[in-house]
Amino acid sequence: MSQSLLYEGKAKKVYQTPNKKGQLILAYKNDATAFNGQKKALFEGKGRLNNEISSRIFQILHQKGIETHFIEQLNETEQLVHQTKIIPMEVVIRNIAAGSITKRLGIEERTIFSQPLIELFYKEDSLGDPLMNDEHALFLCNVTSSELREIKAKALEINTQLIEIFAAIGITLVDFKMEFGRLASGDIVLADEISPDTCRLWDVTTHEKLDKDVFRQGTGNLIEVYEEIRQRLEAIS
Amino acid sequence: MSQSLLYEGKAKKVYQTPNKKGQLILAYKNDATAFNGQKKALFEGKGRLNNEISSRIFQILHQKGIETHFIEQLNETEQLVHQTKIIPMEVVIRNIAAGSITKRLGIEERTIFSQPLIELFYKEDSLGDPLMNDEHALFLCNVTSSELREIKAKALEINTQLIEIFAAIGITLVDFKMEFGRLASGDIVLADEISPDTCRLWDVTTHEKLDKDVFRQGTGNLIEVYEEIRQRLEAIS
Repeated sequence: MSQSLLYEGKAKKVYQTPNKKGQLILAYKNDATAFNGQKKALFEGKGRLNNEISSRIFQILHQKGIETHFIEQLNETEQLVHQTKIIPMEVVIRNIAAGSITKRLGIEERTIFSQPLIELFYKEDSLGDPLMNDEHALFLCNVTSSELREIKAKALEINTQLIEIFAAIGITLVDFKMEFGRLASGDIVLADEISPDTCRLWDVTTHEKLDKDVFRQGTGNLIEVYEEIRQRLEAIS
Repeated sequence: MSQSLLYEGKAKKVYQTPNKKGQLILAYKNDATAFNGQKKALFEGKGRLNNEISSRIFQILHQKGIETHFIEQLNETEQLVHQTKIIPMEVVIRNIAAGSITKRLGIEERTIFSQPLIELFYKEDSLGDPLMNDEHALFLCNVTSSELREIKAKALEINTQLIEIFAAIGITLVDFKMEFGRLASGDIVLADEISPDTCRLWDVTTHEKLDKDVFRQGTGNLIEVYEEIRQRLEAIS
């Protein structure tokens, strides 16, 4: 497929597909970054693993009735997606306290939230993706308040489905980050990726971290844990 | 009045009043602090000015039907207030962008918000009073969601009244910080202070800053601008 580079992010490249209007190719890179790009490394095979994991998760979400931008996995590192206008907002759902929230608000790690906690961050690298409240989001992100309610409802539904998917393979979904995009029709769907780069995933039994925290904290082999996630997902029919 | 020190904050001391149950004395100090206590100085007369300004503003708010913890000004630096349990939340209303929000979210200074923008900060010095969204506030601040709605509605009504009060004396209310407290009855009322320490106040004509920004930014004489506010408020009947 003939491709022209549209955008290069920290973990993916986005290509236009001249022969398929309204569709894009996402090419997963081997780069790992953390702490807003301050820590960087390359991991041979990471792009392939995240493409396979994210493709598989989007397929399962489709089976469960969740709309996403995903169309199909094209090859080892690329997937075809519907073109969307990304809403400049990172939607984080936290089921258990871990990572930034523990330092920012002094909430003890492993605190279980009685209801999933939603946080919105302004997707703007130059500002370090700062936390927003709803009013900030309405001011900065070109969404209406009913669209914001819709995004939050979708995020909670996706969380419910993902908790179930991961529980079936012995994994606790601690928290994860979503991005939403607007299709040409105006509909808002889940975009970007769902992978160990964007989720905190703990083994239910051993509490071992099976996500990018092994890179952030330098406590394990990123490729081994991503491969573990890929293999466990293969077991889901 | 016999007094025993209950608490000392950055700008005020709080005393118990053994002979008046359910009431406290707030004693305004001459200390000025900024940037979460990193910049400090003493200004002879500041305590008296803020006590007089805050007392006058609370009196005018009472005339306008706003409930506060304020009872009466006792002397130059002290006021009598109803004892409340302070909700650990700083409620900020911004009518015009200035200060932290311009850096945090990249919003240009002097941007006028079409509706007043409300921000909640977790009142916790050790964490640097971090921004919260509503879900954080419900988790951390021991308020129900209906109480949070009530606090926001009160904050907006206080903003409406303060805009009018300051407009009458040639001042634009750019933004301000409120704290709310719970009375023994359970009712939530405006507490703490309203003063040039807690408001951004710009002269309508000259745009001169008449608030603590002259100390934060080292651009003017704090006592002179606080005295200016005190004198202009005297003109309000």
